[in-house]
Amino acid sequence: MESKTRRGILERLDAGEVVVGDGGYVMQLERRGYVKAGHWTPEAAVEHPEAVRQLAREFLRAGANVIQTFTFYCSEDKLEISGNVTNITGAQINEAACDLAREVANEGDALVAGCVSKTPCYINSHNETEVKAIFKKQMDDFLKKDIDFFIVEFVDHVEEAVWAVEVLKTSGKPVGATLCISPHGDMSGVPPGECAVRLVKAGADIVGINCHLDPLTCVRTVKLMKEGLEKAGLKAHLMVQPLGFHTPECNFGGYTSLLEYPFAMETRAITRWDIHKYAREAYNAGIRYIGGCCGFEAYHIRAIAEELAAERGFLPPASKKHGLWGAALEMHTKPWVRARSRRDYWESLLPASGRPKCPSMSTPAADYDKKMES
Amino acid sequence: MESKTRRGILERLDAGEVVVGDGGYVMQLERRGYVKAGHWTPEAAVEHPEAVRQLAREFLRAGANVIQTFTFYCSEDKLEISGNVTNITGAQINEAACDLAREVANEGDALVAGCVSKTPCYINSHNETEVKAIFKKQMDDFLKKDIDFFIVEFVDHVEEAVWAVEVLKTSGKPVGATLCISPHGDMSGVPPGECAVRLVKAGADIVGINCHLDPLTCVRTVKLMKEGLEKAGLKAHLMVQPLGFHTPECNFGGYTSLLEYPFAMETRAITRWDIHKYAREAYNAGIRYIGGCCGFEAYHIRAIAEELAAERGFLPPASKKHGLWGAALEMHTKPWVRARSRRDYWESLLPASGRPKCPSMSTPAADYDKKMES
Amino acid sequence: MESKTRRGILERLDAGEVVVGDGGYVMQLERRGYVKAGHWTPEAAVEHPEAVRQLAREFLRAGANVIQTFTFYCSEDKLEISGNVTNITGAQINEAACDLAREVANEGDALVAGCVSKTPCYINSHNETEVKAIFKKQMDDFLKKDIDFFIVEFVDHVEEAVWAVEVLKTSGKPVGATLCISPHGDMSGVPPGECAVRLVKAGADIVGINCHLDPLTCVRTVKLMKEGLEKAGLKAHLMVQPLGFHTPECNFGGYTSLLEYPFAMETRAITRWDIHKYAREAYNAGIRYIGGCCGFEAYHIRAIAEELAAERGFLPPASKKHGLWGAALEMHTKPWVRARSRRDYWESLLPASGRPKCPSMSTPAADYDKKMES
Amino acid sequence: MESKTRRGILERLDAGEVVVGDGGYVMQLERRGYVKAGHWTPEAAVEHPEAVRQLAREFLRAGANVIQTFTFYCSEDKLEISGNVTNITGAQINEAACDLAREVANEGDALVAGCVSKTPCYINSHNETEVKAIFKKQMDDFLKKDIDFFIVEFVDHVEEAVWAVEVLKTSGKPVGATLCISPHGDMSGVPPGECAVRLVKAGADIVGINCHLDPLTCVRTVKLMKEGLEKAGLKAHLMVQPLGFHTPECNFGGYTSLLEYPFAMETRAITRWDIHKYAREAYNAGIRYIGGCCGFEAYHIRAIAEELAAERGFLPPASKKHGLWGAALEMHTKPWVRARSRRDYWESLLPASGRPKCPSMSTPAADYDKKMES
Repeated sequence: MESKTRRGILERLDAGEVVVGDGGYVMQLERRGYVKAGHWTPEAAVEHPEAVRQLAREFLRAGANVIQTFTFYCSEDKLEISGNVTNITGAQINEAACDLAREVANEGDALVAGCVSKTPCYINSHNETEVKAIFKKQMDDFLKKDIDFFIVEFVDHVEEAVWAVEVLKTSGKPVGATLCISPHGDMSGVPPGECAVRLVKAGADIVGINCHLDPLTCVRTVKLMKEGLEKAGLKAHLMVQPLGFHTPECNFGGYTSLLEYPFAMETRAITRWDIHKYAREAYNAGIRYIGGCCGFEAYHIRAIAEELAAERGFLPPASKKHGLWGAALEMHTKPWVRARSRRDYWESLLPASGRPKCPSMSTPAADYDKKMES
Repeated sequence: MESKTRRGILERLDAGEVVVGDGGYVMQLERRGYVKAGHWTPEAAVEHPEAVRQLAREFLRAGANVIQTFTFYCSEDKLEISGNVTNITGAQINEAACDLAREVANEGDALVAGCVSKTPCYINSHNETEVKAIFKKQMDDFLKKDIDFFIVEFVDHVEEAVWAVEVLKTSGKPVGATLCISPHGDMSGVPPGECAVRLVKAGADIVGINCHLDPLTCVRTVKLMKEGLEKAGLKAHLMVQPLGFHTPECNFGGYTSLLEYPFAMETRAITRWDIHKYAREAYNAGIRYIGGCCGFEAYHIRAIAEELAAERGFLPPASKKHGLWGAALEMHTKPWVRARSRRDYWESLLPASGRPKCPSMSTPAADYDKKMES
Repeated sequence: MESKTRRGILERLDAGEVVVGDGGYVMQLERRGYVKAGHWTPEAAVEHPEAVRQLAREFLRAGANVIQTFTFYCSEDKLEISGNVTNITGAQINEAACDLAREVANEGDALVAGCVSKTPCYINSHNETEVKAIFKKQMDDFLKKDIDFFIVEFVDHVEEAVWAVEVLKTSGKPVGATLCISPHGDMSGVPPGECAVRLVKAGADIVGINCHLDPLTCVRTVKLMKEGLEKAGLKAHLMVQPLGFHTPECNFGGYTSLLEYPFAMETRAITRWDIHKYAREAYNAGIRYIGGCCGFEAYHIRAIAEELAAERGFLPPASKKHGLWGAALEMHTKPWVRARSRRDYWESLLPASGRPKCPSMSTPAADYDKKMES
Repeated sequence: MESKTRRGILERLDAGEVVVGDGGYVMQLERRGYVKAGHWTPEAAVEHPEAVRQLAREFLRAGANVIQTFTFYCSEDKLEISGNVTNITGAQINEAACDLAREVANEGDALVAGCVSKTPCYINSHNETEVKAIFKKQMDDFLKKDIDFFIVEFVDHVEEAVWAVEVLKTSGKPVGATLCISPHGDMSGVPPGECAVRLVKAGADIVGINCHLDPLTCVRTVKLMKEGLEKAGLKAHLMVQPLGFHTPECNFGGYTSLLEYPFAMETRAITRWDIHKYAREAYNAGIRYIGGCCGFEAYHIRAIAEELAAERGFLPPASKKHGLWGAALEMHTKPWVRARSRRDYWESLLPASGRPKCPSMSTPAADYDKKMES
């Protein structure tokens, strides 16, 4: 792949291009042996940079135009709560993560986004000055490195996200902000449309949804944000980076309320064909920054790039190892597998769970249930 | 992890140790963007050694005592059929794969196994001389490198496996042989017990089952092999490296007959808790070489090592990033997630598919169905 | 059972008694061979009175305090549309049905309710005079016979139900009115609370919900009606007669939108244990007239009576042939069946469908789906 | 229906006619409130003859050519064990049941079969003289009445069935014998083919399978019986009267081993469309006496008669109230219901359970599981 002059995120979105995001780091690195479930902290950026770099590279090859820094939950207060006994500081992680991301991004046509997420401080103190100081510290770490823009993500109170945007905007770099909320609104009951308005007023250039719920639900929530912006006469780019899991029962509280979270989510994993539907739906909704969060592996990102190949004019590098819609099966030795090398086969397949003794839906954790009823 | 003197595979098994195998390469590298489904050939060993190395390293950290060379389907005749247009020869792949495996194995206490699998030649010509020549060529490639023993795997006619064993035994190195067959026997109708007898008589030091069917079914087949050996007054070590998928419908023909193969297998993926049951069952059946095949990721291998930690006396490196039985959830912020930090929670959970519009079993491809009835 | 002096429906409800309704006639008589699905007309009252009488008697023995006349869809205009080629008139059916109901009711402590349901005329003409004339004709048929009160049921526009109530109130007899609507409101978008207010203002003594949706959903809708009445400062007795099927997907449009309607509803049938939960939930919601509609068989009605036996002070005749909570299994010859003679066994059982190749939810007919989204 | 001269069961079968059996009495009468689950005794023949008569009449209208006496489990020793506190003797029940059956049979073209089933005495004493005395007593009751032939049914040891046949053959009347066994054989391990041979040698004119397992499994077992007879050079008519439930998990031990037995079997109930497949499969297997057992209601029997209408040359009376393959839906008011008035719609429908929180298969009671493995 020839290197091109690096064009900024807003340049691309303003030009109407589709920007493909990357996938999820923490859950995938947990499976690979580098992140501890429950803590979900990113010390692997320092401890095992080769593992993080390899995962980022897979997303790049799959078509990602943005490599996010692996700095999830990396505020000092969160590291402490999670029992950080490694003596690795947040600053060390932030810096290592920026370097890794830059290195991989430069292997292709990708930008680096410095990422901040919700802080325990917000819930505990609800003190604007303290929370903003935490975001400021992280921003300062990032600004020592070569990053292209910022993403605020995985925040479930719009107020906290607004504070983050206000801090990050002082850098002069573009800021995207995604909430992990449902169509019902944020944790304080602010509806998605109103959330979007507040974020854009605070300075966010891109707004949307990430994590917590399945792809089509997240697209639905972004649509509500779009409607809110339109009603308010505001404009912003839209982004979506949903879960790579089916979560039909918990469209209020998010996947942590599912009984299977986090160690038995396998059966809920979305297929590449689910992704085709998602990418098309997101595109049709006017969303132009389309990626994934927990559960999104490289082949899911590739499926976004393949679904939108006509619109974008090219396929990602990893498509060299993928026959579109199963085309490469046509040379399989078994006739019944060859018969599956067709788009309509995969589009209409209802995949069996192979678990006849298991249910197809579970009952989410009780407190959320109650909220749903009210 | 301190390096130890390298002890051979038979030395370990003779001493009654549990040897943990590695997981599956081709399906996982397909998802990561380096292997083409339908072809399933291992040219990535040459094209993207860092990707293969990283995956092998994950298995090592998870507890694997053996790193298999990434040489699946790497006979020249298979590469040709799969449309090998890369100008990369089988010899190049074999050599690169040996180097990779060695490098990773040396990062821990692991052995390298040179692997051969079934050849198209066997079905096409059924000519012993030709088939043996193919295995000889692969063996010669491996013997130029530093490998510890051989594994014959993914063969569904015991006759072809016997030929492979006969060739590989000429090297003087130990040979393991695993068939991809069901409890019903091989593709010519030879029952598992008789298959085991023939393999051992041909010189195999270790016999067992790999791929094609789910963990508990594969253990069941190995038990039938063991019974066959006992009746014949023969002795051999036992190994098992099953699928990481639930396949309740196709216990004759194997997973390629499932409608979901190969692009919608997500819902069938086994959890780490399924692995605990499998590892215990395999151990109780007297199997001491316990690993995985397609669908086994690093965290599944780690679960084998964790289930058998008491018997082995140690945990693998990757357990530093894993609370046993969900223990690390006890510091989660949400009370209902903290309530999941218990063994009995995960052992008794019946995970929901999240797909209420999908069935729980599919109807395997027709020709196999017919065979099952007869 | 000793005969008692016949006390009226309002007398009973005013005294705080629980009145148990009867079950569904048309779907059950379809299965028995006396009603044609698609037409759903009640000519069997004339053609095969012994079959209708036997079904009514089963409900009575199961505990029903009301026997409804088998006059569903029995307006002349509906009979015509349904291709009535029998030369049996609506008047003949109405009279035969009254006689049957009376005869059975007198075998126990039951009242007879004369029933009218929605008319094609309402949709076609939307003419109050014409629609009211149809209800008047039916009422006159009923008044020739010995009936105790009226029920308006299976109406999905509250306006039509109001017209029916206005007509029937001229008889001087008590009138109950149940709509077949969801918590979303009637077909014109009138919310349940507002529907209840209009019905009570029109003169209905009892209001509630029947048919179309599953028991717990119907209870939820009656609760909304109750809230509406409370806000309006009105009072009325509440009744509920839901489907005997699980309908989780179609809580807007009702069961005709399910793919399985009407000939593959078996898998959705509720168990007697589902009924216990329903009866308790209805009772707790303040509903005192509790029965069933399509899908309710005698043993479901008995389960209502058994769940509320303590509140009512007695068991129904058919409980002589039923051990409470499976008690009679304790003398079964097989030990594993004896182990099921416990309340907690049946309360916690999640019954398997026995259909691993079928989904657990279907996609309701398209037009309703669209409505749900909007 | 015009009355015809009564032709015997063998006359009909010898002429190659299809004889349609009736459905299940005890489970249906349990639901109607007349039989106690756990006891399953037929005292309702005396206590509530109108209820038994009505059910028999429904089967007759649905096309049944045989009305079986409602004398299940009616040996004196069984009545005693079941806690018979009614003072109704077995002789009284047998006589009442014969009268009822005769009365209904005479309303159409049907025969009356006197039925005997397994005795507790067989298991307890295993004494041929005692067991035969019990069958002799029942036979003598029947011979006082006007019955056409005998059926031995619901016996799971072929030896006991042979004893029953030997007794009943002394009457000079034809005898049919159906075992409630799986393809694995009877409870002593005698395979189905050998069972059939023993029954025919004992004098049975018709042999087959009833109850315990689902329709297609029972047909499979009858096929094995047929093969056994052919190998032995014997001839007999074949009959099958399976469960009306899907029982995919328990094809060894029968439905009492299912967790749902007997009070949560609803979800497993077969549809009329399942019956079409069953009736065709049974016919193709050469079975000419085709009926049902527990779970078979009148509409299931009608579906047998409708599937085989071309072969038989007529439809049953109850088909007047049934559009073939849903034809009567074409005049339904809702367009999406009208769209279901087609054979291929119902043939290809995979009905949803409506229970997303329930599994699709359960784990049968433990002791049977063990047997299955061995």
